[in-house]
Amino acid sequence: MNSPHPFVAADAQVDNAAIQALPCSRKVYEIGSRPDIRVPFREISQDDTPTSFGGEKNPPLTVYDTSGPYTDPEVQIDLRQGLAPMRSAWIEERQDTEVLPGPSSQYGQERLANPELQALRFQLNRQPRRAKSGKNVTQMHYARQGIITPEMEFIAIRENLRLNHYLESLRASGPQGEQLAKRLSRQHPGQSYGARVGQAITPEFVRDEVASGRAIIPANINHPEIEPMIIGRNFLVKINANIGNSALGSSINEEVEKMTWAIRWGGDTVMDLSTGKHIHETREWIIRNSPVPIGTVPLYQALEKVGGKAQDLTWEIFRDTLIEQAEQGVDYFTIHAGVRLPFVPMTADRLTGIVSRGGSIMAKWCLAHHKESFIYEHFEDICEIMKAYDVSFSLGDGLRPGSIYDANDEAQFAELKTLGELTQVAWKHDVQVMVEGPGHVPMQMIKENMDLQLEHCKEAPFYTLGPLTTDIAPGYDHITSGIGAALIGWYGTAMLCYVTPKEHLGLPNKKDVKDGIITYKIAAHAADLAKGHPGAAIRDNVLSKARFEFRWDDQFNLGLDPDTAKAFHDETLPKDSMKVAHFCSMCGPHFCSMKITQDVREYAAKKGLSEREALEKGMQEKSIEFIRDGAQLYQKS
Amino acid sequence: MNSPHPFVAADAQVDNAAIQALPCSRKVYEIGSRPDIRVPFREISQDDTPTSFGGEKNPPLTVYDTSGPYTDPEVQIDLRQGLAPMRSAWIEERQDTEVLPGPSSQYGQERLANPELQALRFQLNRQPRRAKSGKNVTQMHYARQGIITPEMEFIAIRENLRLNHYLESLRASGPQGEQLAKRLSRQHPGQSYGARVGQAITPEFVRDEVASGRAIIPANINHPEIEPMIIGRNFLVKINANIGNSALGSSINEEVEKMTWAIRWGGDTVMDLSTGKHIHETREWIIRNSPVPIGTVPLYQALEKVGGKAQDLTWEIFRDTLIEQAEQGVDYFTIHAGVRLPFVPMTADRLTGIVSRGGSIMAKWCLAHHKESFIYEHFEDICEIMKAYDVSFSLGDGLRPGSIYDANDEAQFAELKTLGELTQVAWKHDVQVMVEGPGHVPMQMIKENMDLQLEHCKEAPFYTLGPLTTDIAPGYDHITSGIGAALIGWYGTAMLCYVTPKEHLGLPNKKDVKDGIITYKIAAHAADLAKGHPGAAIRDNVLSKARFEFRWDDQFNLGLDPDTAKAFHDETLPKDSMKVAHFCSMCGPHFCSMKITQDVREYAAKKGLSEREALEKGMQEKSIEFIRDGAQLYQKS
Repeated sequence: MNSPHPFVAADAQVDNAAIQALPCSRKVYEIGSRPDIRVPFREISQDDTPTSFGGEKNPPLTVYDTSGPYTDPEVQIDLRQGLAPMRSAWIEERQDTEVLPGPSSQYGQERLANPELQALRFQLNRQPRRAKSGKNVTQMHYARQGIITPEMEFIAIRENLRLNHYLESLRASGPQGEQLAKRLSRQHPGQSYGARVGQAITPEFVRDEVASGRAIIPANINHPEIEPMIIGRNFLVKINANIGNSALGSSINEEVEKMTWAIRWGGDTVMDLSTGKHIHETREWIIRNSPVPIGTVPLYQALEKVGGKAQDLTWEIFRDTLIEQAEQGVDYFTIHAGVRLPFVPMTADRLTGIVSRGGSIMAKWCLAHHKESFIYEHFEDICEIMKAYDVSFSLGDGLRPGSIYDANDEAQFAELKTLGELTQVAWKHDVQVMVEGPGHVPMQMIKENMDLQLEHCKEAPFYTLGPLTTDIAPGYDHITSGIGAALIGWYGTAMLCYVTPKEHLGLPNKKDVKDGIITYKIAAHAADLAKGHPGAAIRDNVLSKARFEFRWDDQFNLGLDPDTAKAFHDETLPKDSMKVAHFCSMCGPHFCSMKITQDVREYAAKKGLSEREALEKGMQEKSIEFIRDGAQLYQKS
Repeated sequence: MNSPHPFVAADAQVDNAAIQALPCSRKVYEIGSRPDIRVPFREISQDDTPTSFGGEKNPPLTVYDTSGPYTDPEVQIDLRQGLAPMRSAWIEERQDTEVLPGPSSQYGQERLANPELQALRFQLNRQPRRAKSGKNVTQMHYARQGIITPEMEFIAIRENLRLNHYLESLRASGPQGEQLAKRLSRQHPGQSYGARVGQAITPEFVRDEVASGRAIIPANINHPEIEPMIIGRNFLVKINANIGNSALGSSINEEVEKMTWAIRWGGDTVMDLSTGKHIHETREWIIRNSPVPIGTVPLYQALEKVGGKAQDLTWEIFRDTLIEQAEQGVDYFTIHAGVRLPFVPMTADRLTGIVSRGGSIMAKWCLAHHKESFIYEHFEDICEIMKAYDVSFSLGDGLRPGSIYDANDEAQFAELKTLGELTQVAWKHDVQVMVEGPGHVPMQMIKENMDLQLEHCKEAPFYTLGPLTTDIAPGYDHITSGIGAALIGWYGTAMLCYVTPKEHLGLPNKKDVKDGIITYKIAAHAADLAKGHPGAAIRDNVLSKARFEFRWDDQFNLGLDPDTAKAFHDETLPKDSMKVAHFCSMCGPHFCSMKITQDVREYAAKKGLSEREALEKGMQEKSIEFIRDGAQLYQKS
């Protein structure tokens, strides 16, 4: 895991794998009400349907795209330059921020002044911004004033997935296309558990959801590079990928590579949980090159600053860390403000105690000083910082259960209730809030988590880690937790924090990151389908049509991971010619159920057998004719 | 995939990987009311708790063991001999069967007489058995007569997991052990959806469940090698692994290897779905060496016998195939009797038509002849065969949906209703029945499947393939379906048919088989926990305790896949010394949340802080003392 070479900024190179477009995919943009609202999508082209199946054209399908400019061949990527600051104009136009002369945190200043860091520092030719005195620059603040920001419009376009464009393309091909559009957009009614699904996602809808606190737009004014996205249960379920080094390994280069890798496969946000060397510089490189919001746990860095001794933490150090990170552009902070002194003893009878790192740091601090948490006591001070940069709260669940045994216990729910109270405090300041959730919870107890969160936190978005539905599968916790994630996403969780196969065992490598991402994309999409999120089923339907028509490459490309799907197919049928084969390796060329179905359907259509009455009358002659015709598959008509 | 060498029986060799005991595990047997009821378990030994955590002994935990004699070093394995026929005495004692002079199926006789097959034939020195004229040899028949068979007693012992033994060992160590036994057996109340969970699983309970049809014991009299197991929603949720060659590849040796591999990781039954060469001989090798029930789809072989032309199938060929396979010892048959002529046109508007291979064969037959299914019409004749060998029905869902789009449609539920009617017919003959279920179903529509199955099929066990909860992840359908499997298992499905990562793409190799098995063991166990199956949580609790105490090897060994867990840990911390390290690679040695928790707990206990009142009074001096003590972790007391 240790990098063979020390990181040198001048050598920073983008991972080649991150800048290749996915197979048969191209980047397209939909332009909003102004030319600089350019919303990216991935457009997946499809082959024509084989003539034996009807021969129709299949228009390209657009899907949500988190990969950013990396997959746009028109964009020159240079990690040392960082991404283009797309939102800068929007932020400047609002005229409520000022450019600072430099970092205003003491630590930020020290790092900048340290000549030893020169070689590994990202060279940013821009100074940090902050709200002008007395101003509040949060998206929630704008929303509550009735302002639809460019970010909100961007998100409305993005959430609509450009599906109208796809369906129009279908319809344009005539009555058959009209029929197909109807079929491919058909969706089963969802069970939404009170979510507002089925409503048109307009810029006004986005504004209203943000104003009410039901959704957040993590978008620090110092992270103008992001493509805005939204987290709320009335939108597509999102996923977060954790990266970050530890004292044991990984370099800056590797962490940037993990970030580009994570967004390539669908990470909607990335948390940098570094606890090792050069946390400040690592984060800068990640943020400057990230088109997705970046979250952190500032407490981790604060702890490093006091040599790892929790009891030495102070509000001043913590505050300086918040400002340091806010001025770098972190979009949301996990703040463990709910770990209060009186809750700590509630964990004494647990099987696995306090497993949240942030939670145990604060528990240790509280016990050592026998005082109420300084984070809890300074919560309003923190709100003041958050609203000066538009950093969103991710209220940390420091007392989440670390085992099935500890699920849904007194400590966990005492904290959740506190997080609900703090949500109200943050909202008083128009600061955006999401609330973190467990953890390890057996299936039958997951819904209670969601219900209590909605109740206590007044519908602020829930952001859960899994939950893991059993403890007995170390090495497979992406799966134990993917089950819980799908369930809680269905019940209303807005963002799912991935768990990789390495959970409990080690630091994830790139393969683990991808496995975690794909598993969580599955969970999120299964939840979207179950809630009945508008348009969610189209991708399933389009892929299933390709599958039925033996368009192998389309089946791969429409899936979440074309590379793996193709590689698996290649294992048994490696030749290119097999990618147009009308059979698969499960049944072989001599018999295939899909083939027979097609046969049945064609025969039914040709002979009028699709009418039930005709069939029931017993047209025996038809069967004779069918056999006489040789019962051939794929007869050309 | 193609075997480099043609298979020769004399060379048959067991896979070395299959006969190694799992790490720190040994085979133990619990003896029933007679010495030949020897119920196998895997006993996992554990290290002592580190002294800093209390230093107590941790008795070995027994877990359900499907791996058979392969993992018993006392047993000499020779694939050419097959496994010992453990049940032979039980079957003979009942005096209701007769030994036949040889195979009574025409095909079985032909294969036996063919000298060209000599080299690859399993040499069985035993003739097949059949019920004496007028006798019914099903476990259901015995159960309904009030007879508790050795099989039923075996199962009752097996389902109890020897947990009393474990808890007694704990309690024997004194008051602390008593306390620990109480903690480790604690379990959250389940939501059982009407399943009878929480009742003691006695031999009489097993008999009653089998008599009522709520559970089946697949146990062909010609498969005396099996270790009996039960499938029913009031027992542990089971999983099935599919293996089998196709026209495109795989040899007999590879299929036997897949079987031993599948049971090593937890396959409760194995279905041999071969459609390629030497189906008869492949099956014989698998059955003779399988300690778990084997299922098949006889229609596949019948189709091969007519050169792959569905319309050429006849009742006579099908009947001969059933007898052929019954006399080899197949324990359950998938019978697609519900694909009736009038249902076929209901599939015409589907997006993916009929995806079940058996379903499409029968649909093709029905259309070609324009006649009602011969399987449906001969259902009672089939029952006569089933009861002469105790083959259980697995009523096939030939019209299951192959895409989210097609979920829960008219065709699917028309068939399900028919399967319910056929269940009643089979029960009239005291023939055991389980019912197969979908397929591709979004989460919110899964419960309807279970509810309708319980209603129509009067609680006959449900046996589902997944269901897959989205279509968009080819290459990861073990996960898309693992989510659905966990859900439907919770709702009451008795056995989950695994789906491997290769689903839709290719034939599974050994890695895929293992990935499928582990994913489904997770789903089954998550379901057991959710239902509140007695004792289900002990393994979670014991593993979590090991995790909390940094007993790394125990954490690996108590999990579903010790090899992978250890390998993952080795990637970051390869040294042996790291297996006793009180930290992990996620946080590194300098800071660890588990460490802090332990610290908090010890401090609380030592200083009396566990009493809430004391804390709330604000004992400030305590904190000073804590810091003065150096806030040391793991203080020796």
